[in-house]
Amino acid sequence: MAKTSITNNRERAFIQRYFAPLAAEYPGAYALQDDCAALTVEAGHQLITTVDAVAAGVHFFADDCPSDIAWKALAVNVSDLVAKGARPLAYLMSLALPGEPDQHWMQDFADGLSQAQSTFAMHLAGGDTDIRDGPLTITITAFGQLPTGTMIERSGSEPGDRLFVTGTIGDSFLGLQLRHSKDDAIGAKELSANDRQVLLQRYLRPAPRVELYQALNQMARASIDVSDGLIKDIASLATASGVGAEIDAPKVPISRSAAQMLRTGPYGLDDLLTAGGDYEVVAAVAGANADAFQAEADKAGIAVTDIGVVTLETGVKVKEASGALLRLDETGYDHFSNRG
Amino acid sequence: MAKTSITNNRERAFIQRYFAPLAAEYPGAYALQDDCAALTVEAGHQLITTVDAVAAGVHFFADDCPSDIAWKALAVNVSDLVAKGARPLAYLMSLALPGEPDQHWMQDFADGLSQAQSTFAMHLAGGDTDIRDGPLTITITAFGQLPTGTMIERSGSEPGDRLFVTGTIGDSFLGLQLRHSKDDAIGAKELSANDRQVLLQRYLRPAPRVELYQALNQMARASIDVSDGLIKDIASLATASGVGAEIDAPKVPISRSAAQMLRTGPYGLDDLLTAGGDYEVVAAVAGANADAFQAEADKAGIAVTDIGVVTLETGVKVKEASGALLRLDETGYDHFSNRG
Repeated sequence: MAKTSITNNRERAFIQRYFAPLAAEYPGAYALQDDCAALTVEAGHQLITTVDAVAAGVHFFADDCPSDIAWKALAVNVSDLVAKGARPLAYLMSLALPGEPDQHWMQDFADGLSQAQSTFAMHLAGGDTDIRDGPLTITITAFGQLPTGTMIERSGSEPGDRLFVTGTIGDSFLGLQLRHSKDDAIGAKELSANDRQVLLQRYLRPAPRVELYQALNQMARASIDVSDGLIKDIASLATASGVGAEIDAPKVPISRSAAQMLRTGPYGLDDLLTAGGDYEVVAAVAGANADAFQAEADKAGIAVTDIGVVTLETGVKVKEASGALLRLDETGYDHFSNRG
Repeated sequence: MAKTSITNNRERAFIQRYFAPLAAEYPGAYALQDDCAALTVEAGHQLITTVDAVAAGVHFFADDCPSDIAWKALAVNVSDLVAKGARPLAYLMSLALPGEPDQHWMQDFADGLSQAQSTFAMHLAGGDTDIRDGPLTITITAFGQLPTGTMIERSGSEPGDRLFVTGTIGDSFLGLQLRHSKDDAIGAKELSANDRQVLLQRYLRPAPRVELYQALNQMARASIDVSDGLIKDIASLATASGVGAEIDAPKVPISRSAAQMLRTGPYGLDDLLTAGGDYEVVAAVAGANADAFQAEADKAGIAVTDIGVVTLETGVKVKEASGALLRLDETGYDHFSNRG
């Protein structure tokens, strides 16, 4: 149907140049010279897998730095693995380019993937590359492993469980505003260069909490990564578990940089609680294990904060500093999104 | 960045309506209600995986029947698994829709997936769905399994090996011409309705040779699926193995329907040998095992034909009926294709 513009030999050279180095240490990748990869799973373990596509104009800006685009494409998938208590292993990448790629662009993209996979202790195992109409799209299938039957589902939380969240919430939302809005409009005129950089980086290079997978695997009753917005994702967890949740809003961890920007801008805590793209983890942990979970997280070097409790009554309530209870709908960024 | 047009609840309802039935019998799919799937691999086995995207205007026509589009999206991936000697197990699907889908379209698409996965003995295990600009794109990650260390690579063939091909070659190419050209131009005016239907179906619904995976796993030294064109794929196998090949052109199996169309049209055997989309398998089998392989294929109900031999001298030679030797370049349909 389509006439070829890049010959098979050039495709092969392209893959060998940019992507084969990312697969070099994974024997099952067969140096990206075969049609399939072979994944070895430890005895008594299952392979955990997820696929997510990121597309220009929807999940990132086409003129974002290629290394940041690559990083995010892998990170959003690793975030899912970690929230399920799995140790990341490897990934496949299906790359759709809108035209023949510029060499500098490709090298920077490959560098970003390389940085991400080193950070997450993963290897490229295979993939496919096409040039076709439409936005630049990176579809990554990520693989992790865990002892058979121990995947931490969304369901499983019980009334009385404590709700922990990793890291800080809302930085990515503010970083997104910094990325595409005028400083005047978002109260960023007086933001220090450092705060600006912190928030932008959190948007461009989300950092899934890989170090926490084991503590989650051992102690979380239910968990989910925060991709659609903290409240919305807690609601998804609660709904899947047939329970509700009560969140203590002032306890939700906010970075100093975010607090700085809230002080001078139009945004409030509610925006941060319902925005998406944090790629933190929310975990429900039995009350009796809360201290132990906190201790394990400390050991792993990941900040976790107890922000509320699982309730018998369904629905998510958010308790404000005044003591007022707000009942929020499931709102926030939605990945089943229309054209960007 | 993008404003949502379909709420999360509607996305959930959409997935539960059309796709959850395809995952119902696979426990590791968690009824498509979690972020990851869990794949269980038998002890002593590896998971074999591959990802391929098919896009409207490149790999199929946007107005093809949705059930055919779905079938093909899964079939092209299964073809890779089978050629590697793996038994198909499950798949993930990442679906990019150019707009909110019509209900009839979606139901027909889901029906096609259902037919394909039943035929290939697979289950849907997970995926993601987005609405975004660009052509309708279906990215499938397919999983199979085989005893650890037994993946049949492209490399591994040795001089003297017999080259077997499954089924018939070139039907899909002729079906593609029937799908998009005027009968006059392609010599199809006198083609019977039955021949027309046979060739069209071979283009629209390629049938990977699932029944042969075990014979390939046990007896092939090297194999590859025929997706880019018979000669090109044999060249890829030979190159990976550091050998050459000599093909006996008159032995290449052609269907009666294809022969009928060649008789009245502009196309010749060369077109069939270099066209793509057959999704048959080419396997190199040690001479001593050739009869046994043939017998196993018979038992599995898959036609295989001995079409040539692996040679010490590199390059692919094609021996014509006259006895003349043609040395062909690697030509044929190229999936690293420009905009359709």
